[in-house]
Amino acid sequence: MQFERAAIAGVGLIGGSLALAARAAGLIGEVIGLGRSQANLDTAVRRGIVDRVARDGAELGRVDLLVLAVPVRSTASTAAALLPHLAPGTVLTDVGSVKGEVVDAMHALLPSDRPFVGGHPIAGGERAGAAAADAQLFRGARCILTPTARTDRAALARVRALWEGVGAHVEEMSPAAHDRALAWTSHAVHALAYALVRAIDAADPALLTRGGPSLREATRIAASPAELWRDIFLANAAPVNDAIAGVIRELERVRAAVTAGDAAALEALLAAAVAAKRRGEGER
Amino acid sequence: MQFERAAIAGVGLIGGSLALAARAAGLIGEVIGLGRSQANLDTAVRRGIVDRVARDGAELGRVDLLVLAVPVRSTASTAAALLPHLAPGTVLTDVGSVKGEVVDAMHALLPSDRPFVGGHPIAGGERAGAAAADAQLFRGARCILTPTARTDRAALARVRALWEGVGAHVEEMSPAAHDRALAWTSHAVHALAYALVRAIDAADPALLTRGGPSLREATRIAASPAELWRDIFLANAAPVNDAIAGVIRELERVRAAVTAGDAAALEALLAAAVAAKRRGEGER
Repeated sequence: MQFERAAIAGVGLIGGSLALAARAAGLIGEVIGLGRSQANLDTAVRRGIVDRVARDGAELGRVDLLVLAVPVRSTASTAAALLPHLAPGTVLTDVGSVKGEVVDAMHALLPSDRPFVGGHPIAGGERAGAAAADAQLFRGARCILTPTARTDRAALARVRALWEGVGAHVEEMSPAAHDRALAWTSHAVHALAYALVRAIDAADPALLTRGGPSLREATRIAASPAELWRDIFLANAAPVNDAIAGVIRELERVRAAVTAGDAAALEALLAAAVAAKRRGEGER
Repeated sequence: MQFERAAIAGVGLIGGSLALAARAAGLIGEVIGLGRSQANLDTAVRRGIVDRVARDGAELGRVDLLVLAVPVRSTASTAAALLPHLAPGTVLTDVGSVKGEVVDAMHALLPSDRPFVGGHPIAGGERAGAAAADAQLFRGARCILTPTARTDRAALARVRALWEGVGAHVEEMSPAAHDRALAWTSHAVHALAYALVRAIDAADPALLTRGGPSLREATRIAASPAELWRDIFLANAAPVNDAIAGVIRELERVRAAVTAGDAAALEALLAAAVAAKRRGEGER
């Protein structure tokens, strides 16, 4: 057992799935849930995701792990509110989609005997809440940990063991490298899905009910919680803006070739995309 | 049986799947395949998709149906080459993703005793060729037919029966209405996928191998054949450009809110997308 008693702040899809999976694997003994929504916490208790709930830090009792699974920009404030109730040696970790801002804030907040390990499991989707929690969610998924020079090595090893124990492939990289990569592979992809739905809805809302499989796939993640993604975009603003600008630039290239009726240029643009996509699949 | 002997020009994913499904359902007796690639035609014969192949119209013999399943901008020229070998009464139909340009060209080309029915099954994807043909591809899919005042009603009824017989839900609309709707629900979606892959490849090709499920879903269709999509974008240029411009406009809105750090505006933008997506799902 890696941790005897863990608190999960935010028993949503990610926090709830981690609790389910870690308890099933015998990695955590007891789990205490914290959250804003009583209805969601009731669901978490009913589904056996948490043993009990705490309304605040005073009700926590002694824990040796705090998992922060709240919207990115609530991570540090949630940790600050609970900190007076955390004994020395308690390990803190998070699951947020942006790491630089969160890691900096946590290092500024925490004393060295309450070590923090930044983490980001690449899993989830548009479903939300304890009702969607799934003990298999992390099986085969990547989980990125973002240690820095300040990160406690023993805490890092324990958090790594937790994620490996629930089936994730753990990688380590710097917070900045994580944020740059995720801006392209996830954050801009979500921005595109939201923008596509907004554009279609503005043109003719009925079209959203009538698309084929490609539209459904392209817009699935546009049902992802607005509050979570507001925080992610703002906490990773510069890389996200770069990535969106890069996509707009490529869309303008396609438009220019279409407007000019330049079949050769258009086919070259598309063929390069096909080739890049195939290379990416071949190396996966 | 709707048709005794059908020629399929272009035995790819769509043409090949229609041949397989229609023969299995007893809707077509014999199928003759035409195409540019001998290797693909060999695959079609080996898989039992076609009974035999013809190198040109002279080898066709008498058919009562010609299905044009070639890139959109090759539809009329393919029909023109075969027309001298088609007996009066032969029904022509197509499966192209753009209808206005094709329907106009076919009406200009064909005498009234060789009736044309424009069609577009909303199925397929990034796979290509006779090797990918699947008798179940159209089961439950929508198929749009685009009759005009010039369309022969008996031919329309026979083509409708063919698609319904392979499991598709047939709808009728004007070519212009089809092209406007598809620009949003399919053509712009493909442009986005191509642009996203190009942008990521330009930033860091390794990222294409490292994304999670949302990136894989968003870029799946970027493996779709460049030649097909070049023709679709060019044949539906104005609606496609409008749709791409609409998406760019919404992306710029997201960027502006992120750049300004305006959390309330950003959340409102995203929440409206979530609501529109949910409405679309509810009405599906």
